[in-house]
Amino acid sequence: MYRVGLIGVGHIGAVHARNIARHPALTLAASYSRSPARREAFAAEHGGRASHCLDDILQASDIDAVMIASSTDSHSELLQRAARSGKPVFCEKPIDLSLAEARRAVAAVQDCGARVMMGFNRRYEESHAAVRTRVASGALGRLQIVQLTSRGPSRLAGVEYLRTSGGFFRDKGVHFFDLARFITGDEVEEVSAMGAALVHPEVRELGDFDTAIISLRMRGGVLCQIDNSRTASYGYDERIEAFGADGWVESCRQPAVAVRHAVGTELAAGPFPQNIYERIGGSYYRCIEGFADFLARPDTPAPTIEDGYAAQCIAEAAVLSAREGRSVRIDELETG
Amino acid sequence: MYRVGLIGVGHIGAVHARNIARHPALTLAASYSRSPARREAFAAEHGGRASHCLDDILQASDIDAVMIASSTDSHSELLQRAARSGKPVFCEKPIDLSLAEARRAVAAVQDCGARVMMGFNRRYEESHAAVRTRVASGALGRLQIVQLTSRGPSRLAGVEYLRTSGGFFRDKGVHFFDLARFITGDEVEEVSAMGAALVHPEVRELGDFDTAIISLRMRGGVLCQIDNSRTASYGYDERIEAFGADGWVESCRQPAVAVRHAVGTELAAGPFPQNIYERIGGSYYRCIEGFADFLARPDTPAPTIEDGYAAQCIAEAAVLSAREGRSVRIDELETG
Amino acid sequence: MYRVGLIGVGHIGAVHARNIARHPALTLAASYSRSPARREAFAAEHGGRASHCLDDILQASDIDAVMIASSTDSHSELLQRAARSGKPVFCEKPIDLSLAEARRAVAAVQDCGARVMMGFNRRYEESHAAVRTRVASGALGRLQIVQLTSRGPSRLAGVEYLRTSGGFFRDKGVHFFDLARFITGDEVEEVSAMGAALVHPEVRELGDFDTAIISLRMRGGVLCQIDNSRTASYGYDERIEAFGADGWVESCRQPAVAVRHAVGTELAAGPFPQNIYERIGGSYYRCIEGFADFLARPDTPAPTIEDGYAAQCIAEAAVLSAREGRSVRIDELETG
Amino acid sequence: MYRVGLIGVGHIGAVHARNIARHPALTLAASYSRSPARREAFAAEHGGRASHCLDDILQASDIDAVMIASSTDSHSELLQRAARSGKPVFCEKPIDLSLAEARRAVAAVQDCGARVMMGFNRRYEESHAAVRTRVASGALGRLQIVQLTSRGPSRLAGVEYLRTSGGFFRDKGVHFFDLARFITGDEVEEVSAMGAALVHPEVRELGDFDTAIISLRMRGGVLCQIDNSRTASYGYDERIEAFGADGWVESCRQPAVAVRHAVGTELAAGPFPQNIYERIGGSYYRCIEGFADFLARPDTPAPTIEDGYAAQCIAEAAVLSAREGRSVRIDELETG
Repeated sequence: MYRVGLIGVGHIGAVHARNIARHPALTLAASYSRSPARREAFAAEHGGRASHCLDDILQASDIDAVMIASSTDSHSELLQRAARSGKPVFCEKPIDLSLAEARRAVAAVQDCGARVMMGFNRRYEESHAAVRTRVASGALGRLQIVQLTSRGPSRLAGVEYLRTSGGFFRDKGVHFFDLARFITGDEVEEVSAMGAALVHPEVRELGDFDTAIISLRMRGGVLCQIDNSRTASYGYDERIEAFGADGWVESCRQPAVAVRHAVGTELAAGPFPQNIYERIGGSYYRCIEGFADFLARPDTPAPTIEDGYAAQCIAEAAVLSAREGRSVRIDELETG
Repeated sequence: MYRVGLIGVGHIGAVHARNIARHPALTLAASYSRSPARREAFAAEHGGRASHCLDDILQASDIDAVMIASSTDSHSELLQRAARSGKPVFCEKPIDLSLAEARRAVAAVQDCGARVMMGFNRRYEESHAAVRTRVASGALGRLQIVQLTSRGPSRLAGVEYLRTSGGFFRDKGVHFFDLARFITGDEVEEVSAMGAALVHPEVRELGDFDTAIISLRMRGGVLCQIDNSRTASYGYDERIEAFGADGWVESCRQPAVAVRHAVGTELAAGPFPQNIYERIGGSYYRCIEGFADFLARPDTPAPTIEDGYAAQCIAEAAVLSAREGRSVRIDELETG
Repeated sequence: MYRVGLIGVGHIGAVHARNIARHPALTLAASYSRSPARREAFAAEHGGRASHCLDDILQASDIDAVMIASSTDSHSELLQRAARSGKPVFCEKPIDLSLAEARRAVAAVQDCGARVMMGFNRRYEESHAAVRTRVASGALGRLQIVQLTSRGPSRLAGVEYLRTSGGFFRDKGVHFFDLARFITGDEVEEVSAMGAALVHPEVRELGDFDTAIISLRMRGGVLCQIDNSRTASYGYDERIEAFGADGWVESCRQPAVAVRHAVGTELAAGPFPQNIYERIGGSYYRCIEGFADFLARPDTPAPTIEDGYAAQCIAEAAVLSAREGRSVRIDELETG
Repeated sequence: MYRVGLIGVGHIGAVHARNIARHPALTLAASYSRSPARREAFAAEHGGRASHCLDDILQASDIDAVMIASSTDSHSELLQRAARSGKPVFCEKPIDLSLAEARRAVAAVQDCGARVMMGFNRRYEESHAAVRTRVASGALGRLQIVQLTSRGPSRLAGVEYLRTSGGFFRDKGVHFFDLARFITGDEVEEVSAMGAALVHPEVRELGDFDTAIISLRMRGGVLCQIDNSRTASYGYDERIEAFGADGWVESCRQPAVAVRHAVGTELAAGPFPQNIYERIGGSYYRCIEGFADFLARPDTPAPTIEDGYAAQCIAEAAVLSAREGRSVRIDELETG
């Protein structure tokens, strides 16, 4: 049984706490929030002790692993402190909204030789993972094109969230930049992005996009297309397809319930999942399963901090590409 | 090039004439109707001569094959005359609404050694034929269950048609009784049928059914279910599935157009085909192709007059079963 | 919080215990098995105390509800004892394999005025429930045909289970007899069944069926078709469709994972769920949710003991129909 | 009845000739090829006279309309001569592989006030047209993203064809550049393209691409993604989806036959159409229907020569973008 210490008791912290409770090899031993009231309430609901300081988790002998689910601006510092503690770490993306700061965190983690798993849960979505498995099996032959679509959910996030999200490419796009690397098993060489604010005036006022398309060229030649919309009237719509010289595979858009009916003369299937959790909710549990495996066996494949950094580099390149109307090579950033 | 003489210039005669025109090995040489005006108009539209009497087709040296598409009550006599002519014959189902009369026609055809193909076009529907092919290949292993669904079209046929149709089992059911034999490659042993007039008062007044379910037990043990409705609000809905110990195959209900769209939060595919021709229209041409093959090669498999008679026997058994509330064995009829 | 006392600690008892643990308003307070070792082990895993006798559950002041998940032959006696205790009861189907004994249990429960919910979990399957909701809404207009298909899972149950199951109609069929009543909201009037042992020699040796089709006529005229196979090579395949004068609705066969891929030139979706839990596993939890609602609000609709008895009557009629080759009216049994 | 004179008797000429024969308002009156043998053979098969010179079509009083289906390098000159003849013209795409030459043809046609319809048959594909209809209806609200996928067929065209095709963007891409304009009802502002030769060495040797992705920004803000592959192992795979603030619509990939079956534990639908004609063959006839309407009513919407030119401009921009690794604005070309 691995005893997990959780830093951050917000929405995603609670999702992880519930999945830890379901997992036979994990237990939530402690949780920390700067707010005494919130950490006490969280501990009362999810079990374990309410830690009064970070070191009650980072330095505690009865904590086997650290989970960072706090606000984005604290990730980098916490990653560095946790890395120095010698405990294995699970960290929510992103590392930091500043690429320079993210680079410092990566370097610190590498210096300590710390084991860090980034919380790219979509890699653990059963249907997405099946796409990767099929591509990796070679069944598709020479991979040619990967498409990643994510639109929705039905409601726009609040303006406060949007303001601190780092923008559409860094916030939403980054999941699919990671998936493009994961599905192809390759690195991005070149990024070309277009964004627009077509639907939500509040997004436009922030100078951000609600609609975006991105083209990626991988080093090995595969071409990837990503399309994202912050909202979709009909629900949460996510799909991936991979196409190669010998075959094709898709993680499909799929109704939330296995029902079809006639609507007038049409055949309706549905309804669509209305939020992210209905579509990919299972991936959060499987991601925690992946973390338990990561704790148990050092050679377990899991998204690394370098993966986190790579996805953020692609996001930066997308931001630059959309601004300057040109393809941006990833090595422009890395040498910068 | 086979020169076809057509008897009967109604709706189905015109369907066949158009398909004969499309077929490279067939030509419509003559057509006959009792009405001089109708046969002249038909010949003007479809080509070939308007025959003023049956013998201008049956005895003509420039006619290679006879097609009977006249009204049901003339089929038996025409079959017998055409059989005596020595020409190969294509005949629309049924042989006759009276089973005794149908038996006489079969005997006459057998006496002459005439080659007769019954127009069971659904055997030629591409998706239905694929079910038969898969069953026959052995890929399904021991066949267990066959289901045949046919509901629709959206509009009820006119009362005049209903009155002379012979009733729901003899009119609509008979196609699926034939398909049950075709798909399984076996003979029916036992029939159990239930019928109801749930939707159309005019059907009820005729003492007929608009809704029916039929269970068949084949000699080899396979169990078949048929369900039929005279109408379906959403269109023409026909599907077949076959299930065996090693697999499963379905000729699916399928939208008429390959379009999907969101309707509110639902995923709609459609619309449904609105009439029989949209769903199985292609089978009429493939059936004519089958006739051309039947003319060219004596060993071409095609629905025989015995197939026509067998399907009608099942319809009689269904009528009896629904009336008496019991299973009816086919051999009760045949010894009768 | 309702404190549940569980009688029976086998496979289905464990399923319920896990779902009780997930439910915020229920807690497992005690569990009983005749075997001291098994009840201790169960309590250690699932919580609550290991009761050393039935009265430690039935008469305990700290138990709010009784759940019967013991072997079938004990249901009737336990139902009667639990009913007398005055506590609300959840009971696994069937009431008893003997219809006469089941009738006694129903009478005893009715005498006590006890509240009993039968564990017909398929009523709680989200997609099946959606069919009922749509039918009940009137959107389908005059209901005409209901089809219920259930084939699978991939492996045959052990011979020991088959021997005590009461036969295919009483064991598997009964779920769909209940669903036919649930979906139509009507009572069965007439039953016509055919069964066969086509695939499994061990089933044939028991004089049982592995393949069956059943036709039902409801009092209000709706016609139902059920088809069942004990196994399906490709997995667990369950679907329901309801067809009415104004529309159609289906709880579909659906792949277990939202993936499609090309196999040669074909488009494959899948794979199929391999066992019952993958297809309808969620219904067990929703059924427990239904039980919590049933405890909280006396007017909560839930399957009653009378529903349990009605489904068993249809099973008896199916047995009789298959044996005698005739339609059996339900009132033949009830007057018997 | 409109009498059509056909110039060019190759593959596509024969497709059109067969569709003209099926159409009740059109007749093939003459056909011309430089080769006397080929034009005689063509006339023998398809009817009409074999014209010995172009003027026997362009200047003939018994020809109502001219159809240009000759080799690409002759289109521009023929368009100009046909335009001067005063007859309405149907012309296969492209106008010319040289944009400057194409511009001359457009100007000449405009000078004459000639009526020209370009053969963009995909606009007439039933499912693609349904996407346009739905977008135009406003049901999708503010349009955000359009995706156009076309991969296949299973076999690569011959090297000789590839050599004269003008390259992947001009040859295959141009159909989807036209569809992007057609679906959105808007003009392209900016093009960003990536191409690769990943699969076919013979394509790489020609300096051409077999795989490409293109991003378009429309003037009104809509973002379009196109992905193309010269071949697809599983068949011909074409789909379009349009996504807007209020809805979504797709012209789907769809099996060629309405059959599903279990393959092991998977549910297979298929097979895929193996060539372009199986997927969009119907569009060639509907396009000819469109031409008949265009002849009958001057205000019939149809793809114009300006549409042909616009699509070619996008292709040129794609070529430039892929070469220079930057977004190319369409007005760079037009001012060029």
